[in-house]
Amino acid sequence: MVKYPTGSAVPYRASAPKDRGFWKKAGKRASFSDRGMTLEQQINESNQYYLNKAVAVVHKKPTPIQIVKVDYPKRSKAVIREAYFRQASTTDYNGVYRGYYLDFEAKETQNKTSFPLKNFHEHQIVHLHQCLQQDGICFAIIGFMTLERYFVTPATFLIKCWNDWQKNGKSSMSLEEIEANSIEIKSGFRPALPYIDAVDQIIADRNKQ
Amino acid sequence: MVKYPTGSAVPYRASAPKDRGFWKKAGKRASFSDRGMTLEQQINESNQYYLNKAVAVVHKKPTPIQIVKVDYPKRSKAVIREAYFRQASTTDYNGVYRGYYLDFEAKETQNKTSFPLKNFHEHQIVHLHQCLQQDGICFAIIGFMTLERYFVTPATFLIKCWNDWQKNGKSSMSLEEIEANSIEIKSGFRPALPYIDAVDQIIADRNKQ
Repeated sequence: MVKYPTGSAVPYRASAPKDRGFWKKAGKRASFSDRGMTLEQQINESNQYYLNKAVAVVHKKPTPIQIVKVDYPKRSKAVIREAYFRQASTTDYNGVYRGYYLDFEAKETQNKTSFPLKNFHEHQIVHLHQCLQQDGICFAIIGFMTLERYFVTPATFLIKCWNDWQKNGKSSMSLEEIEANSIEIKSGFRPALPYIDAVDQIIADRNKQ
Repeated sequence: MVKYPTGSAVPYRASAPKDRGFWKKAGKRASFSDRGMTLEQQINESNQYYLNKAVAVVHKKPTPIQIVKVDYPKRSKAVIREAYFRQASTTDYNGVYRGYYLDFEAKETQNKTSFPLKNFHEHQIVHLHQCLQQDGICFAIIGFMTLERYFVTPATFLIKCWNDWQKNGKSSMSLEEIEANSIEIKSGFRPALPYIDAVDQIIADRNKQ
């Protein structure tokens, strides 16, 4: 029998940036629902919840690193002594849900009225487009952290906005546009961010077409 | 319009281990077909081919690293000065092909008659099982490098063998068992390893059931 790892909860702040202002900022916007978690933390916790409940298998991809020098000290584990961050060629998250391939990027903003498209990288847009061509379920999770509002924005709309930016210079999506073209999800307790509810809706909409 | 990165070929030996014997070893088994590439190199090159041809979108996941110390030198890019390798919680490859979620692990052996199951990690088997439950297309690509023979082995068979090992101590799959339960693929020119042909067969078999 395949043994399952015990379903320990992801530590909420394990990957918090080592920024002295972080705790203060996090404390400021702490509430019952999002408990001061970053968007990434909320998604990671939700993924763990979905995995434990056998709802979906979605993981964050590791940050790509170019390793240059590794020490192998006696009697202890290998230490990387020189390495560099590389540009990722895909989005941060992918996985499988009821036979569907899911692919998404998560982005947060402190803005209150619009989301700047420069927060996405071109390779992420290209990758989402490639996955759409293969009939993947592709989207962005956009967090307006100050407003505590979260949107699942289908990649089709995101790519349309990106193309408008290239053509007409319109460099952001207004909150109204995002509201009109996304599925809003409410930050909650378990899972922290029930984005699979929005995925269900994207699948239903797609099957209607 | 979404711009595509130019479809440059993956350098064959870019990720070759810094092992002085490598070139020699690679040279020994070089042939017209696999051109001395490791299994990973053959798969990465095939993924690039499939991506360029819009056949499938499959990427290798980066190695997970725990970063402890980063220097930010003036006028040059950040350098990671202390980091450790972490255990991956998934397989190395996943992606999307015609709406299907693909998930697989690649393993090579110099053996000629059997494949030792200890080459897989338990978390990989657990992950493949979880993805199967979500109706993913899950398999291993097993390379008998000395024989220059390559097999796409469905995860269902792999998990069965893993469970047999836990129960009865049978710690390897014989070449005959692999032949009988896998789809053999021939190393070629473009793509280096046409594993999507085997995926088509797995999908066809599944749809028959």
